[in-house]
Amino acid sequence: MDRINKDLQKERDQCTFNIQELTTLIDGGTEKTAERKNRENVLLNETELFNQVPDEYLSHKEKYENAVRQSVAVFSMIRKMQDEGKMNVHNYRDVIGCLLGSSALRDGSPLALHYIMFMPAILNQGNEEQQVKWISRAWNCSIIGSYAQTELGHGTFIRGLETTATYDPATKEFILHSPTLTAYKWWPGGLGQTVNYCIVVAQLYTKGKCHGVHSFLAQIRDEDTHLPLPGIKVGEIGVKLGLNAVNNGYLGFDNVRIPRNHLLMKHAQVLEDGTYVKSRNSKLNYGAMVFVRVVIVYDMVNYLSKAVTIATRFSAVRRQSQLKPGEPECQILDYTTQQHKLFIVIAATHALRITAGKLWHTFHEINEELVGGNFDRLAELHALACCLKAVSTADTAAYVERCRLACGGHGYMLSSNLPLIYGQVTAACTYEGENTVLLLQTARFLAKTYQQLNSKPLTPTVAYLKLTPAKGSCNKWSNTIEGIVRGFQDVARSKISYCVENMTKKVESGMSFEDAWNLTSVQLVGAAEAHCRVIIMSIFYEEIQVLAKRVSAELKEVLYQLVDLYCLFWTLEKLGDLLLYTSITQKDVERLHLWYEETLTNLRPNAVGLVDAFDFRDEMLQSTLGSYDGRVYERLMEEALKSPLNAEPVNETFHKYLKPFMQGKL
Amino acid sequence: MDRINKDLQKERDQCTFNIQELTTLIDGGTEKTAERKNRENVLLNETELFNQVPDEYLSHKEKYENAVRQSVAVFSMIRKMQDEGKMNVHNYRDVIGCLLGSSALRDGSPLALHYIMFMPAILNQGNEEQQVKWISRAWNCSIIGSYAQTELGHGTFIRGLETTATYDPATKEFILHSPTLTAYKWWPGGLGQTVNYCIVVAQLYTKGKCHGVHSFLAQIRDEDTHLPLPGIKVGEIGVKLGLNAVNNGYLGFDNVRIPRNHLLMKHAQVLEDGTYVKSRNSKLNYGAMVFVRVVIVYDMVNYLSKAVTIATRFSAVRRQSQLKPGEPECQILDYTTQQHKLFIVIAATHALRITAGKLWHTFHEINEELVGGNFDRLAELHALACCLKAVSTADTAAYVERCRLACGGHGYMLSSNLPLIYGQVTAACTYEGENTVLLLQTARFLAKTYQQLNSKPLTPTVAYLKLTPAKGSCNKWSNTIEGIVRGFQDVARSKISYCVENMTKKVESGMSFEDAWNLTSVQLVGAAEAHCRVIIMSIFYEEIQVLAKRVSAELKEVLYQLVDLYCLFWTLEKLGDLLLYTSITQKDVERLHLWYEETLTNLRPNAVGLVDAFDFRDEMLQSTLGSYDGRVYERLMEEALKSPLNAEPVNETFHKYLKPFMQGKL
Repeated sequence: MDRINKDLQKERDQCTFNIQELTTLIDGGTEKTAERKNRENVLLNETELFNQVPDEYLSHKEKYENAVRQSVAVFSMIRKMQDEGKMNVHNYRDVIGCLLGSSALRDGSPLALHYIMFMPAILNQGNEEQQVKWISRAWNCSIIGSYAQTELGHGTFIRGLETTATYDPATKEFILHSPTLTAYKWWPGGLGQTVNYCIVVAQLYTKGKCHGVHSFLAQIRDEDTHLPLPGIKVGEIGVKLGLNAVNNGYLGFDNVRIPRNHLLMKHAQVLEDGTYVKSRNSKLNYGAMVFVRVVIVYDMVNYLSKAVTIATRFSAVRRQSQLKPGEPECQILDYTTQQHKLFIVIAATHALRITAGKLWHTFHEINEELVGGNFDRLAELHALACCLKAVSTADTAAYVERCRLACGGHGYMLSSNLPLIYGQVTAACTYEGENTVLLLQTARFLAKTYQQLNSKPLTPTVAYLKLTPAKGSCNKWSNTIEGIVRGFQDVARSKISYCVENMTKKVESGMSFEDAWNLTSVQLVGAAEAHCRVIIMSIFYEEIQVLAKRVSAELKEVLYQLVDLYCLFWTLEKLGDLLLYTSITQKDVERLHLWYEETLTNLRPNAVGLVDAFDFRDEMLQSTLGSYDGRVYERLMEEALKSPLNAEPVNETFHKYLKPFMQGKL
Repeated sequence: MDRINKDLQKERDQCTFNIQELTTLIDGGTEKTAERKNRENVLLNETELFNQVPDEYLSHKEKYENAVRQSVAVFSMIRKMQDEGKMNVHNYRDVIGCLLGSSALRDGSPLALHYIMFMPAILNQGNEEQQVKWISRAWNCSIIGSYAQTELGHGTFIRGLETTATYDPATKEFILHSPTLTAYKWWPGGLGQTVNYCIVVAQLYTKGKCHGVHSFLAQIRDEDTHLPLPGIKVGEIGVKLGLNAVNNGYLGFDNVRIPRNHLLMKHAQVLEDGTYVKSRNSKLNYGAMVFVRVVIVYDMVNYLSKAVTIATRFSAVRRQSQLKPGEPECQILDYTTQQHKLFIVIAATHALRITAGKLWHTFHEINEELVGGNFDRLAELHALACCLKAVSTADTAAYVERCRLACGGHGYMLSSNLPLIYGQVTAACTYEGENTVLLLQTARFLAKTYQQLNSKPLTPTVAYLKLTPAKGSCNKWSNTIEGIVRGFQDVARSKISYCVENMTKKVESGMSFEDAWNLTSVQLVGAAEAHCRVIIMSIFYEEIQVLAKRVSAELKEVLYQLVDLYCLFWTLEKLGDLLLYTSITQKDVERLHLWYEETLTNLRPNAVGLVDAFDFRDEMLQSTLGSYDGRVYERLMEEALKSPLNAEPVNETFHKYLKPFMQGKL
């Protein structure tokens, strides 16, 4: 075992709670912890997967080639696990998740979408016959697929997609076509050089009529030669801020014919003669979208836990400047400003994980109702998933940058892994629904609900909208967590009410509803965000109360401190809203500041213990600043020495360019 | 001339003011505009500097080698301009600035620090003899240097630097030494493989006594062979979030001897016998630090103008979804939420540029006082430079991400140039003084000033601290720009006062001042930020009033709209502070929201005109999304096709890995 940095050891020694107990709580039980560790042992000990020269030094093409080599090795292992019955539909997300976070596939994988989107699309949208035929081929990877929806010209507005699939009854085929440059598919992972099949979302035309977007299965490369099939234009879209091993691609069709039964027909069909048969349960598709968004919230929690583990350990090792003159330099974790930067992130990982868990549960509950034909809570579920995806990704991106900047210049090194993590989380702010658009969808649900407050029964997550005090007055403020949650409810309710009134006034003065909506949209976004803060805060607080009943007294104390910190941070952050819409006073605010200071101080001794409890192996963190042993400076230097530029004492450009220039010859 | 996207043309046609007039105003006069354009013509038309394959596809080593080749070509041109008398000490920052922003050196240059830090350090810290000897060699580039201060273990806390320079009177030499790994210099640009000389900041020891940090000139590579000299360990520090062409390096010394006269001796000397002669004017060093920070604010303005030009033009070209059912898809610039994202950034470029100009002027004013021996305003200048550097870099980083995210997924493409711009601006949040540390320095000045409010005359930028209404009451709020500025003054004053009182209470209850300071530091940072917002807002408003007198009525209207927008945005953003510390009411806030909505609507028709006025050539913007002609989608595809992966129909990894895997052979 490596030596442990003595400051880190000191932190661990002073931790007041049992770190293992918290790890178990996070995993969801000792069995789950054991399963996870077992999985990590199998997958991460495969040392041949790792590179001698870090990927970041390679060319874009070399990175791709490494990604294919490593992905194939990884997914071969997974296939072996499948064959041995160790992987199944229940744990495959955990397995993939474990791998995608590891060093082997740290910047994404060109094969990931095959598992995350291609197979699920066939499962959710294919009829039984299609499932039998294609899932078996996909499951054993004899074909590799991607999922192509977004186009160069359209992302958010799916109805605007331009790719067409026109049915030709003469040959019983669909003709896929990209009528314009902007109709080219753009973004699908693995599409560039990797996959040979693809789900294509296109406007379905039959008998001269457009029936909107549907999913089609298209082969795009020859299974034997891998050459693009005739009429297919395919390639990669180029370098990006992050996820550069994903091989995102573009795809254009020049009147490409595919068999009729390549339309995924679980929800809608085109008969041989071209008759379109409408889906009876089109709303079920919402389920998949909600599912993906819950998964994103879990992903955010994972990235966030990594980022704050790195920054907190670094802050315990780093010593800089003196708190008092003449004293030795202190750990930067002793600065209140540093605690202010990091502890909210620790608290947020718990708040978001617990909220995601609740949403996951709600999702399954409502999904059963949907399958049973009860669509009452669909709109609520959709609104919930929209705002949670938006707020969790936006918050996480901000938190990760907070962690990176808290590491000063060293956080700017790729070897810290913080820039890569940022690249991954910030992508989530725009994919699977752009955040502003999603918040406006939640706002639409809230505004509608608010207008029907007295005419319709309220679903659980919006029940608070009715707990309204008489107009003009508000609940009495109380400096407690219950008081804060209630205050946030007042804020959300008031914001929604203000928006609705504002729009009504505008409409009454002659403006169209759409213009009134657009003009009010900045505040509508604010209302949706406020609603989401109510959800996260109240679920976090409620669930911790439940969990607290079955943990040790020491852990219980820390969990409540995390709830306090989370709620206090956001109270002070959103003070303007609270001052506008609740009876909080300046004196209350001063007391909250002191409470916040105290909570930071109380959490200080447990900071390292709290991040240790996330239990990331160094192979998952992949960070010079965050490793368990705290050998920060040694690792920074070791990584630097891996640079190919450092392999030779003098670079050839000295002789070719620099020396002639210095001698005045250039 | 290329076709112009018709939506962009429509925007230009509807612009209500003369774009050229605003450009001239920004440049500072028609002559300055002509000079700038002329410079751009000379430097940017050198097409051989540009690469066929964009740098982003290359390996780290290839990027470096390109950077040397291009930098040498660029600086040869500059040397030619010098010889022809076209470049001098007055315009060389403009020349370098123009180049560093261009495509030729878009990710930085390993030679930049030679001009930005190495030469200025010799000028500012060397005595006459040293200047004669070294500046001539540096000016014609027969030696190339860097500036090495930061170490692996120390950045912010300069007193903690570990590198030693011990004088040996026997040989009349200094011995440079790195006693630990953390003493290694880390970060200096060009240090890795490029420079052969370096300014080294080290603890000066003579006659057994340490005299603190001083600057030394050290040769680190042989002028002929470029091999590191004996005892020198030098190399590059590895890949970073951005600025990967800069060749940042590390440097360690193993008892390396340099002549006595390599101590830069303008401010302090060591005599031959080892006697240390103290500087008489050590405070003059502050000047250089302030200078660098003003330059950073200007840099931020430059990056910000680019980012918002890109995002605004894209938003005029991009059409997505419908404002009203049945209508054609609208330009995304028509969404109020999009205007909310972008227009504040346009306004902020003006606010920051004008503030930087004022600071620049104040800097020169005070510098003359300093040279004349009057140090009265030094503390104020320092405090001002600290908070403006911190707030401008933090705001700019946030604004740039705002612009990038406003472009949706396409902003994630490196070809948008937005990720690269972010890499450059976020670096400025930590270099040249970490932002939190800088804000706390401003806070220290403010707290001290506040405590001496009645005993000392107030310098201009803090004069508002005395305009205080009776304690407990506050100025009557007014919904005008004057009222907003006054409100922000109330906020800053109240925050400082609250912090001082809070610390006093803590000290009175037995806490040490240092602990009280630390516990209050989150709020002290807030107070310093509030002060900075007062400065920016009031300077912006005052200066626009001056400028408005000499521009056309059309431009005047737009300039005032920008001031309104800037002040309203920050008022709504900082509402919590205003509600706490001013008499603003809920009704006022509602009216401010409407005023803000109106201002967005008023600015909408001029959005493209406003960014066109920044007058960036496409070679400077380097963006698929932002070019003048608006051929967004065509350029995205053209850039994608440059990827070396797209040069071959099937990548070799298909045969080596993917096919065997799909056939179950792996």
